[in-house]
Amino acid sequence: MKNSAMIEACLACFAACEMCATECIKMISADHLRCIALCRDCAEICALCIKLEQRDSEFSHDVMQLCVESCTACAAECEKFAAHHDHCRECAEVCRKCASECQAA
Amino acid sequence: MKNSAMIEACLACFAACEMCATECIKMISADHLRCIALCRDCAEICALCIKLEQRDSEFSHDVMQLCVESCTACAAECEKFAAHHDHCRECAEVCRKCASECQAA
Amino acid sequence: MKNSAMIEACLACFAACEMCATECIKMISADHLRCIALCRDCAEICALCIKLEQRDSEFSHDVMQLCVESCTACAAECEKFAAHHDHCRECAEVCRKCASECQAA
Amino acid sequence: MKNSAMIEACLACFAACEMCATECIKMISADHLRCIALCRDCAEICALCIKLEQRDSEFSHDVMQLCVESCTACAAECEKFAAHHDHCRECAEVCRKCASECQAA
Repeated sequence: MKNSAMIEACLACFAACEMCATECIKMISADHLRCIALCRDCAEICALCIKLEQRDSEFSHDVMQLCVESCTACAAECEKFAAHHDHCRECAEVCRKCASECQAA
Repeated sequence: MKNSAMIEACLACFAACEMCATECIKMISADHLRCIALCRDCAEICALCIKLEQRDSEFSHDVMQLCVESCTACAAECEKFAAHHDHCRECAEVCRKCASECQAA
Repeated sequence: MKNSAMIEACLACFAACEMCATECIKMISADHLRCIALCRDCAEICALCIKLEQRDSEFSHDVMQLCVESCTACAAECEKFAAHHDHCRECAEVCRKCASECQAA
Repeated sequence: MKNSAMIEACLACFAACEMCATECIKMISADHLRCIALCRDCAEICALCIKLEQRDSEFSHDVMQLCVESCTACAAECEKFAAHHDHCRECAEVCRKCASECQAA
């Protein structure tokens, strides 16, 4: 892999955000709407980050910066629910890690 | 749809870039490597644009700006081959249209 | 394009399912959970159909068959809400069209 | 995660296939065309597998079966080049692992 720490962090974040979005949708609560939206965004942006980095894309750095923003926003939102929901706590942790790795890449 | 002209332009660009990348790969020519890379990027970025816009994402505008850049780069590259390859000519046209619609959105 | 009627139907279905899922999530209603799930599936499967067909993939036909199934299920679910929600009515229509085009392809 | 061994295998396969496709495209060799095509398919199908499994989709099992087929085909093709190209050898290994985990899931 090109940048294995960044790729590993994006892969974990992609999977965690997909699950967190789905579990939050099932909760049928207005409180979770922003969490759902940010998890859905973050999953897609992480998946794109992986693709563009593995493809040596000239847009890889731009998408990584967007990934830093979406992961940071998603982590902040998931942290609000971390005490009560494992999927939110886990998602917040991998989002923080992913933001950090993309920032450093 | 939220912004139908932009969405329509991104859908057309997504499909055209996927085809142009594939046809250029089959040509087995070093001259087409940058065209392949840009078409592959552009297809993914257009698909993400559609998703984020249809999801009312707060990152939709950022991805649209990235789409303007990738579509403009892809169009410029495809135009080099437009006289000889229909898939490049068609792809260049839809990329120009997509860049314009995303800029205006 | 390889099979323009099928591709056009998948593109329209991809965009409509993304919007219908998002609008249904915002409704915060247990009645819409299956509609949300099927729209999210259908959007991804349509997007994959477009990619594999434009890439001349040997798996294109298999994914088209899966698209027939997911579009048919999604249409049936969206039709339950078609009288009250434009996004469900529109989504049901494009899903039926997409299932039909993928079946014929 | 729902099925962590399967998800981990799909994540690794998604990333490896994206890289192998890109490296093979750069080789500009007719010998690698089928490898490129199968890696591109396999990357997308693995990414869909992850999404549908994390979303508890009713189509998850169908996509896993398709993933078994695409990973098996991709592994067989990459193995032809494994002695000479690290990206093909690594891709073949993760494809075999992914096929096995999806079959067992």
